[in-house]
Amino acid sequence: IKYHELDCVINGEYSIKCRRDGNEVFIPFFGFIQKYFEIYGKLSTEDGYERLEWEHSYSTVHRPREKYSPAGVFMSFEYYNVEERDRVRCISAMEGVPLSTQWTQNGHYYPIQISQFGLSHLSKYLTQPEAEVVTLEDGEDELESWILPDKRSQIELRKDPDLSTTLVEFTTSDSLKNPGISLPVDEKEDFVLSADIKFATDGSITVTIDTPGLQLFYIHYVLSSRLIFLDGHDIYYGLGDRRGQWMHITRDIAIDFDKGLALKYNKSKRTKMKLKVSRIKVVIVRGHGWLDNLTLSTTAHLDHFYNAANWLVLHQNDRGGWPISVQRKLIPKVLELEPGWYSAMAQGQAMSLLVRAYLRSHNTKYIQAAVDAMKLFEIPSMQGGVLAKYADRYDWYEEYPTTPSSFVLNGFIYSLFGLYDLKEVTSGEESKMAERLYNKGIESLKHMLLMFDNGSGTFYDLRHITLGIAPNRARWDYHTTHINQLLQLSVMDDSEIFKVTAQRWMDYMKGKRAKHN
Amino acid sequence: IKYHELDCVINGEYSIKCRRDGNEVFIPFFGFIQKYFEIYGKLSTEDGYERLEWEHSYSTVHRPREKYSPAGVFMSFEYYNVEERDRVRCISAMEGVPLSTQWTQNGHYYPIQISQFGLSHLSKYLTQPEAEVVTLEDGEDELESWILPDKRSQIELRKDPDLSTTLVEFTTSDSLKNPGISLPVDEKEDFVLSADIKFATDGSITVTIDTPGLQLFYIHYVLSSRLIFLDGHDIYYGLGDRRGQWMHITRDIAIDFDKGLALKYNKSKRTKMKLKVSRIKVVIVRGHGWLDNLTLSTTAHLDHFYNAANWLVLHQNDRGGWPISVQRKLIPKVLELEPGWYSAMAQGQAMSLLVRAYLRSHNTKYIQAAVDAMKLFEIPSMQGGVLAKYADRYDWYEEYPTTPSSFVLNGFIYSLFGLYDLKEVTSGEESKMAERLYNKGIESLKHMLLMFDNGSGTFYDLRHITLGIAPNRARWDYHTTHINQLLQLSVMDDSEIFKVTAQRWMDYMKGKRAKHN
Ligand SMILES: [Ca+2]
Ligand SMILES: [Ca+2]
Repeated sequence: IKYHELDCVINGEYSIKCRRDGNEVFIPFFGFIQKYFEIYGKLSTEDGYERLEWEHSYSTVHRPREKYSPAGVFMSFEYYNVEERDRVRCISAMEGVPLSTQWTQNGHYYPIQISQFGLSHLSKYLTQPEAEVVTLEDGEDELESWILPDKRSQIELRKDPDLSTTLVEFTTSDSLKNPGISLPVDEKEDFVLSADIKFATDGSITVTIDTPGLQLFYIHYVLSSRLIFLDGHDIYYGLGDRRGQWMHITRDIAIDFDKGLALKYNKSKRTKMKLKVSRIKVVIVRGHGWLDNLTLSTTAHLDHFYNAANWLVLHQNDRGGWPISVQRKLIPKVLELEPGWYSAMAQGQAMSLLVRAYLRSHNTKYIQAAVDAMKLFEIPSMQGGVLAKYADRYDWYEEYPTTPSSFVLNGFIYSLFGLYDLKEVTSGEESKMAERLYNKGIESLKHMLLMFDNGSGTFYDLRHITLGIAPNRARWDYHTTHINQLLQLSVMDDSEIFKVTAQRWMDYMKGKRAKHN
Repeated sequence: IKYHELDCVINGEYSIKCRRDGNEVFIPFFGFIQKYFEIYGKLSTEDGYERLEWEHSYSTVHRPREKYSPAGVFMSFEYYNVEERDRVRCISAMEGVPLSTQWTQNGHYYPIQISQFGLSHLSKYLTQPEAEVVTLEDGEDELESWILPDKRSQIELRKDPDLSTTLVEFTTSDSLKNPGISLPVDEKEDFVLSADIKFATDGSITVTIDTPGLQLFYIHYVLSSRLIFLDGHDIYYGLGDRRGQWMHITRDIAIDFDKGLALKYNKSKRTKMKLKVSRIKVVIVRGHGWLDNLTLSTTAHLDHFYNAANWLVLHQNDRGGWPISVQRKLIPKVLELEPGWYSAMAQGQAMSLLVRAYLRSHNTKYIQAAVDAMKLFEIPSMQGGVLAKYADRYDWYEEYPTTPSSFVLNGFIYSLFGLYDLKEVTSGEESKMAERLYNKGIESLKHMLLMFDNGSGTFYDLRHITLGIAPNRARWDYHTTHINQLLQLSVMDDSEIFKVTAQRWMDYMKGKRAKHN
């Protein structure tokens, strides 16, 4: 028998063209297998060795560290790059936190995203090499080589009595048409700009950027409450109406540039047009004000971390919550949440962030906010809280506190991590409350965890059980989140169930399945 | 690029040899796909058209009739051939019911198997063409052409005053060495033998069989309590110690022959040796006794049906149950049942059978047994009954009433069918009890059904939830049982959940899966 084409009749329903060679039949991968089974594969010839790389799953498991600390790295969040995500419109220059466009084109401050932004930057800070810092101007000793645009403009060193440091005072027109007082920089590697700055008048700080295609762009940070704006080669970020206030600003210029251009060009277009920062050429100030500690650095993770923590302290309401201002339709007309809902995941992720901010700064405002964030865990979903009950018996903290309940697994476990962090660092009544909530949650999790095991992967939630509808299988990245969480839990709690289940769930990623009878 | 061999690296773990043709890669079906994904396939060239028949599942769904009646066909049990199964040692000649070797080589009377035997025969009776019946001897008018072995032997017509019929009386030696009083038959199609017979002495009835290979065999039905025995070309079945009693015996000679030879040869060997009945040559009686209504027929379904119902009435104990006399290890050392356990499925299947026997015969002993069978549904598994509770809340009737509970789906639904049948035909308190038990069960089922949906198939039970272990996926024949049951339920109860879920579960059999997020 020789190699030839033959039909393969699929479940008696349709035919595909296959190949026969002796007693073996060969089935087309790209034309059939890939879609029928959702297998990922690509032809590769990288090292001169031609092959098909067959992947059952596209996602990666991150094993946690052997020990867990509420002050330390959060899971494997050092791999997260929150601000790079498409659904982050930009990092607000007013508060230094991301604005989400998930579920609404208008954008909203999504506490989960903000906490993850903070936790990822802390985790990067704790795991990455120390940042290189280039000081452009510290106001000490002698003035850097600032260039004045005209004779009426000036810049000079000043002693600041309040701040017990020296800094520079600059005076020039606040018009954006004014070339401004400029400092040539020519920095090719470190693109995170930080500065302490205060304006007496209207004013701005501008960064001039070069790209690989040698197109010049300008990012202007202005005293406006308009978030972000693109006009030709000019990108504007609003610093808010903060005239007369000291501002500590930290901007990832590469991100600010990319988000600005994203207003006009999609990702593939930006890549094609080579629109990325290759060099920071000049830093410019305008108006009348004071400047100190102007630096460029590889990263400024701690600044981002505290920006997130401060945002949480500032925006927590009297219920201890961070209400989410968009409507959320888990299942349209069946499981919906009206604007103003709370999320146990948001509360929990905030706790994890705030506990870390407290342990690092010893500022009690952070721990107080974390403690207050527990209150909603005792309030049922129906009453605007985040507490669901499974079978009238098991407490479950809802990422999406719909009625009926949805029982989203990953959000629940994140909320438990928050409670764990909190119980570890508090004492007295606060610690007891955190411990009680944590223990109840863990008990529920141990009873219900296997309801998410579908024998070849996991379910994202339990909508099939509460609503009697088709199950909602977790895509592979949520599946690996589940595994990462179980591995993390098994560091906190040595119950066999977390280790054994995580191992089986990892096996599922290689195409293994639970046995059938 | 031409057709050539290339490696496919599977999940980074190992390589298989594939074929490349242009931009397509072809994966070996028999060498890889079949096992990796558990797909069933065979090369077929039947009608001159060569093809691979790819089947995602090997099992078939039977749509139920549009109307359901507690007197009618049970599900699609007309397709069941209980006695042909390997795990049936034989049909006892003492009681006319199967003896199971499941879970024990010694064999035991398994009430579920007995009920299914009865229900399948009733269902066949109701759906198949009427049986052909050849009367060999009815004792009326004139004697058939019996051949006497010697001068002392005799056979003659007699009027039986008790039975108000005429019959034959036979007298000859009861020794099996005696050729006996024989009736040439030469029957090539109808192999089910029935007779009314009573022995005054020891005695036997023998059937002489021819096979395609022209080997002669003898099946002897003897007054012994030895179930079955093979010695060379002689097969013995014990009729029990019933001297002096009228017996109505009904034997499927083809089955009796096959089970006899199964004691020595496995199935493939029996097929290879062509050991099957091609002809019934002679019927022989020995000893002193009376005989009437000796027939050969295509089938005798109602006899088998009543044999099963009568067995249930005779062997029900004072708890209303049919204790199962073997140890059952669902999971060794974790979920075990000691001999004497009851099964809600056994109770329910018995109800379905007994209700049908009652509706057909109007004999109240059957309905009374069915009513008594309900009692164990109110007794918790821990106390030897069959009642489990899920989450302290949902009643579940256990096929295997282990502690912790196993929540086997198909057994539970069979038990509901029994309760349904019973509530439909009873009245007063008995009906109220059946209805209460049925309604509670259906309520639980509606809440818990989706826990068995794994997004690409079903689970056999909920051991993963109660024990926190790997789920027990249902193999395809159990999966189709689940579907058949849901389709049957949707005839009894028009809730959307049964129809919609059954449809999705049918889709799973074609490789469709529930969506992922
Ligand atoms: Ca200074
Ligand atoms: Ca007669």
